[in-house]
Amino acid sequence: MKKRLLLLGASGSIGKQTLDVIRCHQEELELVGVSVGNNVGALVDILNEFDVKYAYCINQDDIITTKYPNVKFFFGDQGLIDIVKVEDYDMLVNALVGFVGFMPTLEAINNKKDIALANKETLVAGGDIINEALQENNVKLFPIDSEHSAILQSMQGHRFEDIRRLIITASGGAFRDYSRADLVNADLEKALQHPVWNMGAKITIDSSTMMNKGFEVIEAHHLFHLPYDKIDVVIHPQSIVHSMVEYNDGSIIAQLGCPDMHLPIKYALLYPKHSLDFCSQYLDLTEVANLQFMKLDYNRFPLVRLAKELGTFGGNSGAFLNGANDEAVSLFLNNKISFVEIEEYIFNTLKDAHFKQKPTAEDLVSSHKWAMEHVDYLWANS
Amino acid sequence: MKKRLLLLGASGSIGKQTLDVIRCHQEELELVGVSVGNNVGALVDILNEFDVKYAYCINQDDIITTKYPNVKFFFGDQGLIDIVKVEDYDMLVNALVGFVGFMPTLEAINNKKDIALANKETLVAGGDIINEALQENNVKLFPIDSEHSAILQSMQGHRFEDIRRLIITASGGAFRDYSRADLVNADLEKALQHPVWNMGAKITIDSSTMMNKGFEVIEAHHLFHLPYDKIDVVIHPQSIVHSMVEYNDGSIIAQLGCPDMHLPIKYALLYPKHSLDFCSQYLDLTEVANLQFMKLDYNRFPLVRLAKELGTFGGNSGAFLNGANDEAVSLFLNNKISFVEIEEYIFNTLKDAHFKQKPTAEDLVSSHKWAMEHVDYLWANS
Repeated sequence: MKKRLLLLGASGSIGKQTLDVIRCHQEELELVGVSVGNNVGALVDILNEFDVKYAYCINQDDIITTKYPNVKFFFGDQGLIDIVKVEDYDMLVNALVGFVGFMPTLEAINNKKDIALANKETLVAGGDIINEALQENNVKLFPIDSEHSAILQSMQGHRFEDIRRLIITASGGAFRDYSRADLVNADLEKALQHPVWNMGAKITIDSSTMMNKGFEVIEAHHLFHLPYDKIDVVIHPQSIVHSMVEYNDGSIIAQLGCPDMHLPIKYALLYPKHSLDFCSQYLDLTEVANLQFMKLDYNRFPLVRLAKELGTFGGNSGAFLNGANDEAVSLFLNNKISFVEIEEYIFNTLKDAHFKQKPTAEDLVSSHKWAMEHVDYLWANS
Repeated sequence: MKKRLLLLGASGSIGKQTLDVIRCHQEELELVGVSVGNNVGALVDILNEFDVKYAYCINQDDIITTKYPNVKFFFGDQGLIDIVKVEDYDMLVNALVGFVGFMPTLEAINNKKDIALANKETLVAGGDIINEALQENNVKLFPIDSEHSAILQSMQGHRFEDIRRLIITASGGAFRDYSRADLVNADLEKALQHPVWNMGAKITIDSSTMMNKGFEVIEAHHLFHLPYDKIDVVIHPQSIVHSMVEYNDGSIIAQLGCPDMHLPIKYALLYPKHSLDFCSQYLDLTEVANLQFMKLDYNRFPLVRLAKELGTFGGNSGAFLNGANDEAVSLFLNNKISFVEIEEYIFNTLKDAHFKQKPTAEDLVSSHKWAMEHVDYLWANS
């Protein structure tokens, strides 16, 4: 029996690499549904290559629906929710970028489908709600993220109660070696130069501010059910050790590999297999030669500390943090604010937020929206 | 139910650290039997501290047997075989040094006892026979060795068929940075200075020649049932990454920790637990800061290649290799031969050896003895 996949975000970086993995594992994996945003060209390519039953793009498109009469199409905001409600698939691969990914994950879980999750916002904003839904529906969620995949791999076969702490590695982003004073001169062009990973603009900026690492700490808390004081971050510029788990006897299990997202995608889709295929890249540690590790300075990267603090509080704070960051980064990418102002807008927005301990999914949506709007409001009034 | 342990080699380095572990885990572990060599003082200390039923030392000693009337004593060559034949224990901890450890392991397996094995010679000389006995008697063998413990830990929860290769790390020993030409000036004092581990003289020399790493490759083959072309060695001067397992998808799982033998001892005795106790040392990777990896040059360290070649042949070749090395290192430690002559005596002895594909346990004993004597013969006639 093939695993039938519904892939959201197929035209993005993770989506494309997921298609690579499906191509390499046609005996085990089958693409039955797919979403893109506005990139109808990418959708057409996928429909020509794969025998897909369900497809989504934002805007209704009669040319394409006519051309593919056997495909059921979904459009618009509600379409992205409705497509995950179809019955005949086994796993949702959520490679959507942004908070828009949250509700489809939740609906797919309620539809009793396993999840392979690349969408960070799902857990950062709604980790508690997602975990409740996972338990109620008895379905599994696998992370598509090099760090969390590394932790999952490093926990296999070891007892949960023996875990002392998780050690998440961080490249440190484009400005790792900048002091706080240097950051004043950090410009957009430099912020977009990630030292190791080649990713989209938003996540590259999140890496420069290390907001991304803060998000990963929150995700790790929800994925692995450990308190925040058992989740540490260490700077590791080479991004070869993708993360580690330390056990009570002092033993540390780590997962290493080339910086290549195919690896965590494959592990999530084919768990617990480590399958040989044409995507496989092998790491020669003697070519890397040196792996460095440095303490994370929480004063230098205050967003990591903020994420830990908000994570500990829980509630709707992750939705606020996501929303504030989304909009602040957007202002920076549009040259409206400076790099250090990203942090300022986030902190100032969080100051004005009304926290709620037990939010509903709808509360999270409105908290996220409020935070985005509040960043704009603060900017317009600055 | 406590796990009842019979500890051979209690006064050596691994033996003492095993006693530490037992002290830390008195609710789970119980020492019921113990052996020392000539160190009767150490034996008396153990008998005073632990409620032991069985004890061994080489020479009959009436003072001690009178003083401890409730302890059953064993002496002489046969005593070390007889003590493992007693019934009321669960696991043999074999921390004997040298080929003398082989027969007790085999007898304990035939006595249906699990094994925690620090004695390298058992598997290097008799891996095939040991594996047959393990299977026949349905008992388990756990390695007490940082490298093999790391591999065992890195295999937990992952599929055996997904393993691409084992990567055994090697500090490189005292002469890692010496060229072949430099080795001519390598003296005993320098050879005894291991860069990381504080161990006995014999194993420190085996580390300098990297014969030890060759032995570990053979042990890994027998422990993990993988062909030699799937077992690699990489130089890692810091000895923090204790070894790794590479999988078919390119993922590498590694085990890291302080260079502390308590860790593999605990894992072997309490498997699969990673227990918290007073022996636990925690690694701060940011203090180590740098982990280096370099290719192993098999021409620089020919004994590793020799071990791989002999291992591939199998039969009684491991017993010859063990015996030749034992005696050559002994000659070096007694200032009879130079450092580079250790290799020469081993190679020349192996040249003269009569290999046998399906040896008995007794064949292995005589092959080991022959090789030792042949090294002496070559030396006397040099």
